[in-house]
Amino acid sequence: MAKDQKKQPRPKAETPKGFRDYFGADVTERKAMLDRIAEIYHRHGFDPLETSAVETVEALGKFLPDVDRPNAGVFAWQEETVPGGGSGDWLALRYDLTAPLARVAAQFRNDLPTPYRRYAMGPVWRNEKPGPGRFRQFYQCDADTVGSASVGADAEICVMLADALEAVGIARGDYMVRINSRKVLNGVLEAAEVRAEQAESVLRQIDKFDKVGREGVLALLTAGRKDDSGAFIEGVGLSDAQAAPVLAFLTSGGDNNQATLDNLRAAVGGSAIGAEGVEELAQIAAMLEAMGVGGDRAVIDPAVVRGLGYYTGPVFEAELTFEILDEKGRKRRFGSVAGGGRYDGLVERFTGQKMPATGVSIGVDRLLAALRARGLSGAAADGPVVVTVMDRDRMADYQAMASELRAAGIRAEVYLGNPKNFGNQLKYADRRGAPVAVIQGADEAARGVVQVKDLNLGARIAAEASHEEWKSQPAQTEVPRHGLVAEIRRILG
Amino acid sequence: MAKDQKKQPRPKAETPKGFRDYFGADVTERKAMLDRIAEIYHRHGFDPLETSAVETVEALGKFLPDVDRPNAGVFAWQEETVPGGGSGDWLALRYDLTAPLARVAAQFRNDLPTPYRRYAMGPVWRNEKPGPGRFRQFYQCDADTVGSASVGADAEICVMLADALEAVGIARGDYMVRINSRKVLNGVLEAAEVRAEQAESVLRQIDKFDKVGREGVLALLTAGRKDDSGAFIEGVGLSDAQAAPVLAFLTSGGDNNQATLDNLRAAVGGSAIGAEGVEELAQIAAMLEAMGVGGDRAVIDPAVVRGLGYYTGPVFEAELTFEILDEKGRKRRFGSVAGGGRYDGLVERFTGQKMPATGVSIGVDRLLAALRARGLSGAAADGPVVVTVMDRDRMADYQAMASELRAAGIRAEVYLGNPKNFGNQLKYADRRGAPVAVIQGADEAARGVVQVKDLNLGARIAAEASHEEWKSQPAQTEVPRHGLVAEIRRILG
Repeated sequence: MAKDQKKQPRPKAETPKGFRDYFGADVTERKAMLDRIAEIYHRHGFDPLETSAVETVEALGKFLPDVDRPNAGVFAWQEETVPGGGSGDWLALRYDLTAPLARVAAQFRNDLPTPYRRYAMGPVWRNEKPGPGRFRQFYQCDADTVGSASVGADAEICVMLADALEAVGIARGDYMVRINSRKVLNGVLEAAEVRAEQAESVLRQIDKFDKVGREGVLALLTAGRKDDSGAFIEGVGLSDAQAAPVLAFLTSGGDNNQATLDNLRAAVGGSAIGAEGVEELAQIAAMLEAMGVGGDRAVIDPAVVRGLGYYTGPVFEAELTFEILDEKGRKRRFGSVAGGGRYDGLVERFTGQKMPATGVSIGVDRLLAALRARGLSGAAADGPVVVTVMDRDRMADYQAMASELRAAGIRAEVYLGNPKNFGNQLKYADRRGAPVAVIQGADEAARGVVQVKDLNLGARIAAEASHEEWKSQPAQTEVPRHGLVAEIRRILG
Repeated sequence: MAKDQKKQPRPKAETPKGFRDYFGADVTERKAMLDRIAEIYHRHGFDPLETSAVETVEALGKFLPDVDRPNAGVFAWQEETVPGGGSGDWLALRYDLTAPLARVAAQFRNDLPTPYRRYAMGPVWRNEKPGPGRFRQFYQCDADTVGSASVGADAEICVMLADALEAVGIARGDYMVRINSRKVLNGVLEAAEVRAEQAESVLRQIDKFDKVGREGVLALLTAGRKDDSGAFIEGVGLSDAQAAPVLAFLTSGGDNNQATLDNLRAAVGGSAIGAEGVEELAQIAAMLEAMGVGGDRAVIDPAVVRGLGYYTGPVFEAELTFEILDEKGRKRRFGSVAGGGRYDGLVERFTGQKMPATGVSIGVDRLLAALRARGLSGAAADGPVVVTVMDRDRMADYQAMASELRAAGIRAEVYLGNPKNFGNQLKYADRRGAPVAVIQGADEAARGVVQVKDLNLGARIAAEASHEEWKSQPAQTEVPRHGLVAEIRRILG
């Protein structure tokens, strides 16, 4: 038996490809950020919802809003065959937090308040080829209002998004919530007499506005253009007269919402849907102002095109406007950390009835990276006080010390490895980021004292020093045993 | 196209069997409890670890500690075939938090501090037949110390467990941490000359001590007995002389640790492993005392048999000692909410080297149920103030009110459903548990006032009342618009 076991190769100690572990501060920093966001969402009347990670493939459907990843797959498996019956259901890990919300909104439509405001924070899974910085499990943080046709719901979410960014530490002036409308775009296309079958292509081309600029999009909407490699990209085939209002739409933004709205009114011409869209944006602008959110925090900006293909009404995006250095050392804007908008198809799949909804999703890893880039992540060093072990048979004494410290609210632990090599204990304290080490040998115990070593106060060489050298360091103080807590309180300030 | 879509049956809006959703207070109450536990763990020097939900089946292995569910399965699937290569890895959802810890301890053994203290909180998945109260996704909350052979690690975890229970609100006297040792049992079996192949059966029988009592276990260890149905259960076949020390072991506990330890010393006779186990328990008892944890919080109790089969050294269990009414109205002790102990095989599967470890797992749903049973769950009503909508075209005004309230730290929202039927708005406020409703019609707006309705103060009939009746309720006050926040502050006290 033992022999058989030996023959089996040892399993590899590895995460599956594209998965990762989060240690210590990785966990607490994300949690602190999400807790602050949750507090803002809560104050706006949103309730938490936590659905299970597993859904039926049937309920999940294919509903990916993320146009950057059209081929995103799911992790799915089939339930075991039911005894005496047919084959089991196909189950899958949720790929976002919107599809489960759709299922919940349909399943509990008679029990939930209408409108239903909910937020959700948790991991989602995508069965994709992993790459650098692209993982197959990652966090999402969503807030949605289901069952409200009022653009008040959209305005509220834009304000909440701005509040959430400030709550996690992003300064006013370092972010901008930009708001656009699919209805306005539709109106522009209608006014320009763009045929329905061309609309999809137009959307694809204007999505390149950031990359190719005004002239580039103009060429792509009309006769086509050569890209950087010299290859010819065919155009949509609009006339210049048709392309003009589309470009006017894209470039109609500015600091002043009223001017932008005037530009948009002109761009939609006589289109009813376009006029409706402009009117909605005007209402949102008025509501933002009423809620005390000025142009330094949120603005109508038709250049926001991401999501226009998916959403049905207002669309919004939060951009961080400060600059960071990219991997090549060039300055660039940090960019988008959240996006959302209004969508209709949510519950209809299940009930056959349209249900208006609007929501926003914050990119958790992106926002956390932004906080780190700005030095805003609460990585306050909080290693524990380490009580070292000089006499193996006096463990209870050392534990009493740690216990007293903890009772005083101080993070503390006893060294629980093999205490034989004292140098290892100091290395351990170093690795733990301990601010203080406590030392009490037989000599000190007999005299009723302890040594308290301030590790931040210069003992960088501690790990290599012998116990005697260590004791001679100026940052080390001898205090009466009963003065232990007070001395450590003093050091920790 | 539209016709084709119609033909498809609508998907069912249901969670897969055995899965559930958590709404509102379900989420926040669990979170509040786990946050308090995490704070205690942190103060004891434990760091958070969050592994991914997905592991390779190879790394996961079969390592289920939960003897109640020996057939527990996992949710597993095979990765898509690698292009041009062999078949993909088998992946699975983690079934506990210990197996991923084993993988992490092996994978990062050169980077992690030794010993490594970590806590983990999160969902795990079991592919089992669901039943009432038995779900296929549930939370676990674990703390483990990897790489310490010292029983100081075990003592520390027992103290931490007691502290955690008090931190979430369980009063001293309402819980007991009970500690036993597999080594002592092994010593007893050795002293009684029980053959190695009988040990497993002995473990199975003493596990029934709670149910069948002293006489029952004596019969099961020796010649056998009839169970309640009259069926004969074969005994292990020990002689009375062999069974006696096993029973002495099981019943050697009491309020006084020293007396218990003396009983155990007698029960293990000349067994070296038994003497070692007793000595370890004696050390743990001394450490608990040094850490200020008396017999009212933790006690050596050889009657704790659950886990003895799995663990290799000290074993512990936290029991809630207060009584609740079961589903049949009978009083019974609430019972176990946490368990753990020392185990060796953790990292060995991966590295071939034994790695001592000890840990505890709190049953999250059980403990939450206990808090609810004791009225300790923080279900403080915190519905939002609801600003109702009397004039659809004055949404911005209503949102300004909600915004002011939020700026004052008060949870508030504007009604965003169809405002036509005012009764629906009041029903909504009721369903949201709103403490206050704010009302401002054209008349009030013209006069610069708002109506503030204290919903907790008697308006149970509100949902049925007309707007005029509602206004006449005594709990409703008219205040100047600029006095809105102050008035609501006054009501919320």
